[in-house]
Order: sequence, then C-alpha cells, then structure tokens
Amino acid sequence: MAYLNENYLKLQAGYLFPEIARRVKEFVDRHPDAAEDLIRCGVGDVTEPLPRAAVDAMHRAVEELGHRETFRGYPPYEGYEFLRGAIAQNDFRDRGIEIADDEIFISDGSKCDCGFILDILGDKNSVAITDPVYPVYVDTNVMAGHTGPATKDGRYEGIVYLPCTEANHFVPEPPNESVDLVYLCFPNNPTGAVATREQLTRWVEYAREHNALLLYDVAYEAYISDPAIPHSIFEIPRAHECAIEFRSFSKTGGFTGVRCGFTVMPKSVKAQTEDGRSMSLHPLWQRRWSTKANSVSYPVQRGAEALYSDEGKAQVRALVDHYMGNARILREAAQSAGMQVFGGKNAPYIWVKTINGLASWEMFDRMLQDIHVVITPGSGFGSCGEGYIRVSAFNSRENAEEVARRFHKLK
Amino acid sequence: MAYLNENYLKLQAGYLFPEIARRVKEFVDRHPDAAEDLIRCGVGDVTEPLPRAAVDAMHRAVEELGHRETFRGYPPYEGYEFLRGAIAQNDFRDRGIEIADDEIFISDGSKCDCGFILDILGDKNSVAITDPVYPVYVDTNVMAGHTGPATKDGRYEGIVYLPCTEANHFVPEPPNESVDLVYLCFPNNPTGAVATREQLTRWVEYAREHNALLLYDVAYEAYISDPAIPHSIFEIPRAHECAIEFRSFSKTGGFTGVRCGFTVMPKSVKAQTEDGRSMSLHPLWQRRWSTKANSVSYPVQRGAEALYSDEGKAQVRALVDHYMGNARILREAAQSAGMQVFGGKNAPYIWVKTINGLASWEMFDRMLQDIHVVITPGSGFGSCGEGYIRVSAFNSRENAEEVARRFHKLK
Repeated sequence: MAYLNENYLKLQAGYLFPEIARRVKEFVDRHPDAAEDLIRCGVGDVTEPLPRAAVDAMHRAVEELGHRETFRGYPPYEGYEFLRGAIAQNDFRDRGIEIADDEIFISDGSKCDCGFILDILGDKNSVAITDPVYPVYVDTNVMAGHTGPATKDGRYEGIVYLPCTEANHFVPEPPNESVDLVYLCFPNNPTGAVATREQLTRWVEYAREHNALLLYDVAYEAYISDPAIPHSIFEIPRAHECAIEFRSFSKTGGFTGVRCGFTVMPKSVKAQTEDGRSMSLHPLWQRRWSTKANSVSYPVQRGAEALYSDEGKAQVRALVDHYMGNARILREAAQSAGMQVFGGKNAPYIWVKTINGLASWEMFDRMLQDIHVVITPGSGFGSCGEGYIRVSAFNSRENAEEVARRFHKLK
Repeated sequence: MAYLNENYLKLQAGYLFPEIARRVKEFVDRHPDAAEDLIRCGVGDVTEPLPRAAVDAMHRAVEELGHRETFRGYPPYEGYEFLRGAIAQNDFRDRGIEIADDEIFISDGSKCDCGFILDILGDKNSVAITDPVYPVYVDTNVMAGHTGPATKDGRYEGIVYLPCTEANHFVPEPPNESVDLVYLCFPNNPTGAVATREQLTRWVEYAREHNALLLYDVAYEAYISDPAIPHSIFEIPRAHECAIEFRSFSKTGGFTGVRCGFTVMPKSVKAQTEDGRSMSLHPLWQRRWSTKANSVSYPVQRGAEALYSDEGKAQVRALVDHYMGNARILREAAQSAGMQVFGGKNAPYIWVKTINGLASWEMFDRMLQDIHVVITPGSGFGSCGEGYIRVSAFNSRENAEEVARRFHKLK
C-alpha cells in the first residue's frame, strides 16, 4: 500500500498567493464592471518588458538550437561556465568578494533553490525563521517533516520564530538559544527592511559560535540604494564558512516568466554527520544537481548572461530605477494619506500599518472593494505580519500613480 | 550544529555519466590525435537541431516578453493552460485515453519529476526498481533515505530489484512479495525493451491488488513502431487508479537543452496515511508545485506547444525517423559483426552483449581505445546490466554509419 507524505497534511489553507487569486476572482465575478479598474500590487510580479540585451541573446540562442552546427543538448549539470563565470566575476569578484566560478550553481529560480537546499541537509536540524517571512521557507520545512503540527496562530511547532517588529526595525537579532539553520532575507520580503553590516556580522558570529548555517536570500539585492548596506552575506568576514546565498534574475532582469536564479555555495561551508564528522556541503550540492536535474534551458542561460553585458547592466539599472520610482511614489502617498509606512527605500515593497486597527485580511478586502487595489495581507507572511499590508512597487508608473491617488480615498 | 543529509554518503562513486565523461577526458588527454575521430554514442543526448516549429514559436514568445503589451511574468504554477490542454488532447484524448487538462503538470524535464515525485510520498514505502535501470530512480531513493547502505554488487539494501534478463526478454513480471512503489520504464532505457499490453495489464492488476503505485516513465514513447505496444500506461483499464506517468520533450522535440517534460497525475490516483486513510495525490502534487516552483520558462512552454501543431508533429516524426534509421543501421551492423543485439526496434537504444565475455567497463575501454567509440557500460545501469553495453542511436546519419563500419574492426 503506497503511503503519502503526511507532512503535507499539516500545511495550512492555500499557499498565500493562490488564496489572494481566489478572493480576487470571487470579487471580479461579483463585480465584472470593477475588473477593468483593478490594479494589482499583490504578488510581487514584474510588469515591464525584458531588457533588450536579454531578448536579443535569447533570440540568438534559440536560433543556434535550430541549426545542426550550433545545436546544443544537455547543459552541464551546474549550469554553463559562461554564466557561472559572468556571475562570479560581476556580482562578487568585481566587488572584492572571493567566489570561484564553480561555487555558483544555476537554477530555474531561487524559490526552487530554497526548497532544494533541504535535500542535502539532515532532518535533525533545528530551524529558525523570521516572522513575517516569505512563506516558502516555512512550508518547505513543514513538507520535509521538520515541524510539528500548526498551532492556532498559524505557526508550526518546532520552528524557532524570530519576530520582526517595529521595535527591532524588522531586523531580528540572533536568538539566545542554539539553532542549526537560519533563514534570512535582506532586503526583506515582505517588510522591505535591510540589515546593516553590523547586524549581519552578529549573525555570522552567531553562526560560527553555534556551527549554524545561514541561508541568505538576496533576491532583492539590486534594490539597495544605501551604499553602506551589504549586497551579499559574503561581504562579512568568515561568512564563507557558514552561509549559502540565494539569488535570482526575477527582480533584476524581470525574469519571473523566464526562470533563472542561482545559489552561491562556497566550498568552505561545512555541515556535520550525526557522529560529528564535519564535511563540505559543496560536493553534496553538486551531486544533487547531477542526479536530480539537467540544468536550465540554454536560451535562458544566454539571456541571463546578457544581463552582465554593458548594455544589459544599463537596462537592468533602468528597470530597478523604474520600480524604485514607483516605491517612492507609493511610500510618499501612503504617508501623506496618514498611514504609517516602512520599507520602500532599499526594496521594491512598502510595508504599511493597516488603518483603524483593521486585521490584514480585512484591510485586503476593504482595499479590494473600496479602491479596487490588490495588496498582500501582512498576516499571510506570519503572525507578526498581522496588522500590516505589503504593497508591491512592481507596476507601470501610471498604475503606481493611480494607486497613490486612490490611497487618499481610503476611509 | 548544522547536519547534512547522510544518505548522500551512501551513494556510490560518481553518477554514471560524469564517470564516462571522466574516462573520455583522460583518454583524449593522452591521445589528443584521437579526439577528432571520437564518436559519442554514450549519453543519450540528441544531436539534430530543434524542429523549426519550436524555434519559431520560441522566437515569438521571446519577442512577446520584450514588449510591455505582451509581457508575461510568473506562469501558472502547474504550467500554462495552452500547453496542458495541447498535451491532454493530443497525447491522450485523441488516442481515446481520458485525461483532463488539469491532470497534466508541466516541468523542466522528466528527470526532475522522477526525483520530485518522492516529495509527496511517504518514507515507509517499499520500492521495487528494475535492474538494469536509469540510475536516477535508485539514486533519488537513496538520497531520500529509503534504502540501507550499498552492497558489494552496487545494489542497495532495502530496494526490491526486478531483474531484466535475456530469459524474461528484459521485461520483469510482478514480484511475489508486496511492494508499494514500482518504477517501470518502457520503451526501456537502457535495454530498448517494450512491454506488451498483457504485461502492463499484469502490472496494473498487481498494483490494484497490493494498493501499489506504478511510476511509469515513457520518455521514449515516440519511438514505438509496433502498433500493438501501448504508448501510455493509461491505455490499460483502471491504471488511472494506480499509476503516475512521466513524459518528456527531450527525445521527441530534441529538447534536452531546452528543458521541458510533464507528469500525468490522474485525480483518481490515491495513496494512504499511516493510519489507513486513503487520499488523492493530485492536491499534494499541486501543492508541491505552488510551494516549491514557479513553473517553466514561457518561451520553452510555447516551444513545446508548437510540437503539437501539424508542422511540429511532422518535424518530430522526421526526427524520430532519423534516429530510428540510425538504430536500424547500428543494430544490423552489430549483428553482422557477430554480436548479440537486443532493442533498437521500438527504442533509440541497442543493448549489446559484450564480446568474449568482457565486463561492461572493459568493453567500454576497448571500444574507446580500439575504435574510438564511446558507449555506455551496461553495468552502470545495475548489476544485471553487467556483460552488456548500451549504444545510443542519437547521432548524425554519417556518425551512425561510421560506427557501424567500426563495429567490424572490433576484436
């Protein structure tokens, strides 16, 4: 008799974004006239076209596959050298961070990597996760059986939650207890907060002291405007011994529909066996890729490579500037409408306190019904997100300006 | 202290294909003059360009992403409806098999799916795997902790091996014992064997009797020439209750470098909880995709869809005919050179007994050194593959004809 993975049955309701889609559909079905007026600032999905450098590179690669002389079959398991090299050089070595080409592993998105990483880690790890948080870190740990059942507040037994609140400016300090894995994401989704060099240094010190592993998600690194804020965990001395970094082209080159990201896995990062032998994780990660995947589509890898050309860099910069212009407009409008606003300065999300003490989903429903704007309820990211909403700056300028106007109509 | 997944440490040597690559590189480094002469019939990678219909569709999709009006971001988690629908209609309903569009889940290759499927299955399942076999089924189960350590013959404790031998024409009958999961692959990689309707019916009966789940891999379905051989497990009555099917565009549209495949997950397929509740796997699989991935690159999905256009179908047919022409040439040449040959009639692989009782890796080295042809040693697929080699028909006609000539020079 075949058994299913019962850990899936612990998962709560739908994953956040399908639930948003369901509520929006229900609203539009009841109010078809409002559909045209609806502006989506919910799912953090980009809206602007791909950089022309990426489009041109993908065209060339597609055409190569159409001719026998230039056809390519299976890519190298870990990704093409041309892309691994471009990443290691541009994102790291050019910024004075020592990362070798073969410490870069190409994937079809950092969401996937955040789940895959648990493949090579043991089941006995204690896990610390910020609250609020990108739901994927929690849910993949639930699926892997690393938690107990859900409690009434939507948390899961067995996870160490790190509250991110107004009091700590949404950046938690290391806990007093010892944990084995820590998920950190800065610039943060959903709060838009960033961690300073000093804060990250304390996390690296904590990891080294407890032999913990930091799983550092910097999908929004390109949105950092403050020159003092680190773009990579590997800017912190000795992070190479205790951190793995996840990155994505989704929010730089607008690759949400193209699908490409990567993991930075330094060879010096170690974990241990239950009998206390310390071993490098790099060969396990390599084995994971060779056994379980065949890398990423060739035209996609060429598209990502093109983002590092001079032309591509300028076009990515223009995209990021566009979205950050929206963030400023939304932030200022929400503030002038009397709302309390966080984030939006080094991240494409603004994190807004609900008005009149509404619960997050109440505020979601009110904004949907009254001003036809879709946002993400903060409570969908964890119980500490209750009383907040996330507004995404991924939109056209026109829509951002219209949402800014509508903020003032909220009662 | 972070723990690693110790099951990885049970894995034997390199995964098969990296080991072949290593030996070839060593040979070429020692004999640089032989490099040009080398013909690769090892890894089953396609050589012919993509069908023009797919190339054109990918160009159009890439261009769409380059313009604001036609830009698309995150795809639906399970894949675009246009592709799910084309698959369900063409591969199933047009052949009289009832499969709904939403029972198709798009992925970046069936290799990935073969690993992902274990995500939603329990750890207590007993697993039966054919021998020889595509190494991914075994290795992903080792990684998931479903086996004991490796034994001297390269097998793993805890797996029920189903020998595929000359005596059973490389198609095993269901075992006497009860198992929970059975991996089957027909047309078979590596033996090229196919299962008849009667044989598959016995497997479905076995699965229903034991509440087992059949994991059916038909990546080579397009190569079936015998009209009596089923193309899908779902041609067998009541397979919808006990089977999941894996398919790929790698060997139809030549998508090994483009990356696209899919899983057929009927809603009626169930598995049970440890306390005996029977539940549909479909919602778990859907949850897996929404939580752990963001589907497949949009241009790739458009390329796959184009394989179902009239033009695309004719181009895929021509590709398959090309490779099967090679298979015939290789099969006949090996036979006339006095070798004992199996497969190659409904599959792009021929399965050849080694000469003079050589071990598989000895034959590999001899062919590499003496005739500069790279094949895959049968023992790399399992202990029952010892004494055989797999020769891939994925090549140019010119190369296939040259390999055929060289067969006669083998001593």
